[in-house]
Amino acid sequence: MTEAARITLVEVAPRDGLQAEARTLSTETKIALIERLADAGHTVIEATSFVSPKAVPQLADAEELMKRLRRRDGVRYPVLVPNAKGLDRAIAVGADEVAVFASASESYSRKNLNRSREEALTDYAPLVRRAKDAGKRVRGYLSMVIADPWDGPTPRERVGECAKRLLDMGCDEVSLGDTSGVGTPHEVAALLDVVTRSVPIANVAMHFHDTYGQALANAHLAMSRGVRIFDTSTGGIGGSPFAKMAGGNLATEDLLWLCRGGGIATGVDLDAIVATARWLASELGHELPAHTSRVLREGAQG
Amino acid sequence: MTEAARITLVEVAPRDGLQAEARTLSTETKIALIERLADAGHTVIEATSFVSPKAVPQLADAEELMKRLRRRDGVRYPVLVPNAKGLDRAIAVGADEVAVFASASESYSRKNLNRSREEALTDYAPLVRRAKDAGKRVRGYLSMVIADPWDGPTPRERVGECAKRLLDMGCDEVSLGDTSGVGTPHEVAALLDVVTRSVPIANVAMHFHDTYGQALANAHLAMSRGVRIFDTSTGGIGGSPFAKMAGGNLATEDLLWLCRGGGIATGVDLDAIVATARWLASELGHELPAHTSRVLREGAQG
Repeated sequence: MTEAARITLVEVAPRDGLQAEARTLSTETKIALIERLADAGHTVIEATSFVSPKAVPQLADAEELMKRLRRRDGVRYPVLVPNAKGLDRAIAVGADEVAVFASASESYSRKNLNRSREEALTDYAPLVRRAKDAGKRVRGYLSMVIADPWDGPTPRERVGECAKRLLDMGCDEVSLGDTSGVGTPHEVAALLDVVTRSVPIANVAMHFHDTYGQALANAHLAMSRGVRIFDTSTGGIGGSPFAKMAGGNLATEDLLWLCRGGGIATGVDLDAIVATARWLASELGHELPAHTSRVLREGAQG
Repeated sequence: MTEAARITLVEVAPRDGLQAEARTLSTETKIALIERLADAGHTVIEATSFVSPKAVPQLADAEELMKRLRRRDGVRYPVLVPNAKGLDRAIAVGADEVAVFASASESYSRKNLNRSREEALTDYAPLVRRAKDAGKRVRGYLSMVIADPWDGPTPRERVGECAKRLLDMGCDEVSLGDTSGVGTPHEVAALLDVVTRSVPIANVAMHFHDTYGQALANAHLAMSRGVRIFDTSTGGIGGSPFAKMAGGNLATEDLLWLCRGGGIATGVDLDAIVATARWLASELGHELPAHTSRVLREGAQG
């Protein structure tokens, strides 16, 4: 067990969260969300995505949002870029960080990226190089690191190889995603044992979905194995365009509650996140999955 | 880390679950629930409670239920007994196991048991002796082992002392309850460090509520520290008569999913529990909190 003194949260509600919602928020509301998240103390906020507006209409205002967003010193605002055109768009609006997304499994790569796993990684190499040359920080997402709904369990050695390739091509960190949310702590431990033979744990983030209620237990396990960067979503919103496959993202406030109990610093204020989740629920028109916001909203005592 | 090869689940839906529900199920439906849980492979099913029917009207049919229930070899059916009169009633219907419930915190003891913590423990000593003399197995519940909503954090040494007293007076095991669900893995680890100085871990069960989404992470931590008995509730139903204070019990199926990923035997069939949760949701007239039942019901792939 390696006790964490401090972890970094990558807040993904404005991108991974909102892209799974039926209701599309206005640019103004999205900016208000990002502002609230920064006010709460987040230093990394995934702002939007430069994928095709046809694929993700909820984020079709990526340019406008990035132009209007008043960025703060000390806060990074990564944006997703699927290809060279997406990178051009991100550079044009002055994004400080971009994220590419590959898959550790073959079927999901073909369904989500329209390319084989190998083609996607090959395509990303020049793109990442160009982003680095342009002075951008680069995040590499790797999906389906535990299992793929079509292919079954993902070979752990392959996850390690893909992670290494992403770092070798210039990514500053790689975010390992249990995209379908099937993973359990034992499997996360086994994965990290293998992956850390190929890449330094300091460059590994983890990205959990709560489909089977395992997200927080998985995050805690990963934390005990030395992972220090976690992708979380205020309110626990999120999912997948393949709707029934993935539950929401690990909820920011539930991880904050865990960190509070363990004396682990995050720099993010729990009360501010709970207030933001309440506001976001009203904007989205439905209750959000995070436990901590629901109970604190109801005035229960801690 | 002590890897578990096998754990025992104490299924508490028929008692801790149903007592928190607005709708009172018929005796027949409760028996059908218990039968389904036994069919699924559960070997310990908390069947009902002999508290005052005025306090818990949902379980006012305790006698009738126990008389009509066809008990199976190899399955234990503990029932709650608050006092001598409750024990008389449990003995009269031939219960094979009884559970007494004390509190590690003062305020909750006074609110829930109408007695001080010390008075409750003193009162239980002759009761447990009498139950043991009558050949019953005895479970001792200890509530609010992490914190109490009125008193704040519960001193860990006191939890150890109370647990030891319950075992010393004859309880076969003590179930440590994070009744309000505020605990986090770090606090559970710290608690177990202290408690296991006073009592053997083999006699310790843990009982988590999911108020802040921490239940499964806490259970996994406890498992890694050697706890092998967990109280869980199919569908994740449960709570507290003080409604807003506690979330549901740790969901049986979410723990089963974790065990499946870790190769940990429970003897309980996940699909049968998911089917039972679906049926129970229709009987109770609302969706249940467990994640795994919701996603498997929707036909997502694992």
